[in-house]
Amino acid sequence: MRDTRRLAILGVGLIGGSVGLAARRAGGWHVVGHDPAIEAAAVGRGAVHEMAATAAAATADADLVVLAVPVGSAAGLLRSLRSGVVVTDVGSTKRSVVEAATAAGARFVGSHPMAGGERGGVAFARAELLDGATCLITPTADTDPAALEVVETFWRSLGMRTRRMSPADHDRCVADVSHVPHVAAAAVARQADPHAIPLAAGGWRDTTRVAAGDPDLWRDILLDNRDHVAAGLRRLRDDLDGLIGRLDAGDAPGLRDWLAAAAAVQRKQPPVALP
Amino acid sequence: MRDTRRLAILGVGLIGGSVGLAARRAGGWHVVGHDPAIEAAAVGRGAVHEMAATAAAATADADLVVLAVPVGSAAGLLRSLRSGVVVTDVGSTKRSVVEAATAAGARFVGSHPMAGGERGGVAFARAELLDGATCLITPTADTDPAALEVVETFWRSLGMRTRRMSPADHDRCVADVSHVPHVAAAAVARQADPHAIPLAAGGWRDTTRVAAGDPDLWRDILLDNRDHVAAGLRRLRDDLDGLIGRLDAGDAPGLRDWLAAAAAVQRKQPPVALP
Repeated sequence: MRDTRRLAILGVGLIGGSVGLAARRAGGWHVVGHDPAIEAAAVGRGAVHEMAATAAAATADADLVVLAVPVGSAAGLLRSLRSGVVVTDVGSTKRSVVEAATAAGARFVGSHPMAGGERGGVAFARAELLDGATCLITPTADTDPAALEVVETFWRSLGMRTRRMSPADHDRCVADVSHVPHVAAAAVARQADPHAIPLAAGGWRDTTRVAAGDPDLWRDILLDNRDHVAAGLRRLRDDLDGLIGRLDAGDAPGLRDWLAAAAAVQRKQPPVALP
Repeated sequence: MRDTRRLAILGVGLIGGSVGLAARRAGGWHVVGHDPAIEAAAVGRGAVHEMAATAAAATADADLVVLAVPVGSAAGLLRSLRSGVVVTDVGSTKRSVVEAATAAGARFVGSHPMAGGERGGVAFARAELLDGATCLITPTADTDPAALEVVETFWRSLGMRTRRMSPADHDRCVADVSHVPHVAAAAVARQADPHAIPLAAGGWRDTTRVAAGDPDLWRDILLDNRDHVAAGLRRLRDDLDGLIGRLDAGDAPGLRDWLAAAAAVQRKQPPVALP
């Protein structure tokens, strides 16, 4: 066993770069990146020790591979990796990538660090992005226990908390707290009269902040989780219809109840155990 | 002309308290508050020099009266004030209060400081809340020019920028950038599975932050501006329907276009002149 293990990061953007910076901060890793687009920038930011020209070269003698590419690109990369290497990812959806990994026979453990930002790219990467955030881990009955141990230990060594859940539970929960809120924020941004936007206070900026996220990235996330996202958006739309009805009727107590239920959710944010 | 003028603040909550703190910071004002609910707290926070037992006592020799009560309570107070005193307010809607003031023959100038917070009450008041924020001023053809000058100078002396617009334009624009976003944030908070909420990253917390606002206050705002709010919510609902259709159809280019338009709005926030 070597003192320094080798970490390969495929895709050195906001998340991949932050993983590299956090691994270097934690120590004990030699970090090799691969990203066709941004070799010099990733090295310049200190996110990796070195960049490799190909994914195969980056992962050839890796102890752990992190796929930090957009949802939808992970499956293809998985099939190109040498067999036996422990692989995880950082994608915002988990059912499809876990299925692809199982089909490919990879030693794969699905991960989703619940951290990010509306500005992508390694230029915005920082080790602190992951500090104290939760990393959702989605093992299945087919997951190699030793690989699961490697991956969970890795995220914790970067300062994250880990939480296990099934890929199906993951995709349903994350639709609620990330994908549907993203669409709602985007819809609010789309509706505003451009002449009114300069008048906005901090509330508008906060409510719509995430809408600045990369449209390509989010298109892939929404499509990959489209059943849960569409169901969540239908509930949201029906709830808005209910409020419009109360407004039209001048139903003051009904409006108050509707608003009070939202305020209670937002104020509590209860530390409830997962199902 | 006295060196120190008298400012009366009726309603010493988050906004009224912050106005008092900012006026004391600016200097030149003796600040008298009135608020049946919170006499000791307001004095303790330093938001006022003194509290008066009645609105009449607070405003008896005031040079300027600020109504910092919930939308819907301002009209009644307006009618109780001695004639001739310059009065402004801080309400989130402007058509109804301006109409009431005109009917009452008050020397009234409508104001709306675009600043706030989801936690109300004088305990959260601070002078900095207003720093650099925009105060919308809604004069009409009936507004006394001298009163307008007093009110605009006052807000600027507290560190705010001022911007004039008609009460009608105000209510339409603010529906877009405040009232509709508030409802959308609340709907997102209402939709989330309570078990999923502890998993949320910073995006969810930002998107739903304003939903923690006081339900009574927001009920009155939404009802008072219900025509614009309902119209904005119908547009929002229809836009969500359009996205659901693209999701159901697996329309990747259509999804990307929808998201890209939102990202462009959020990234630009263009400093466009008002209509």
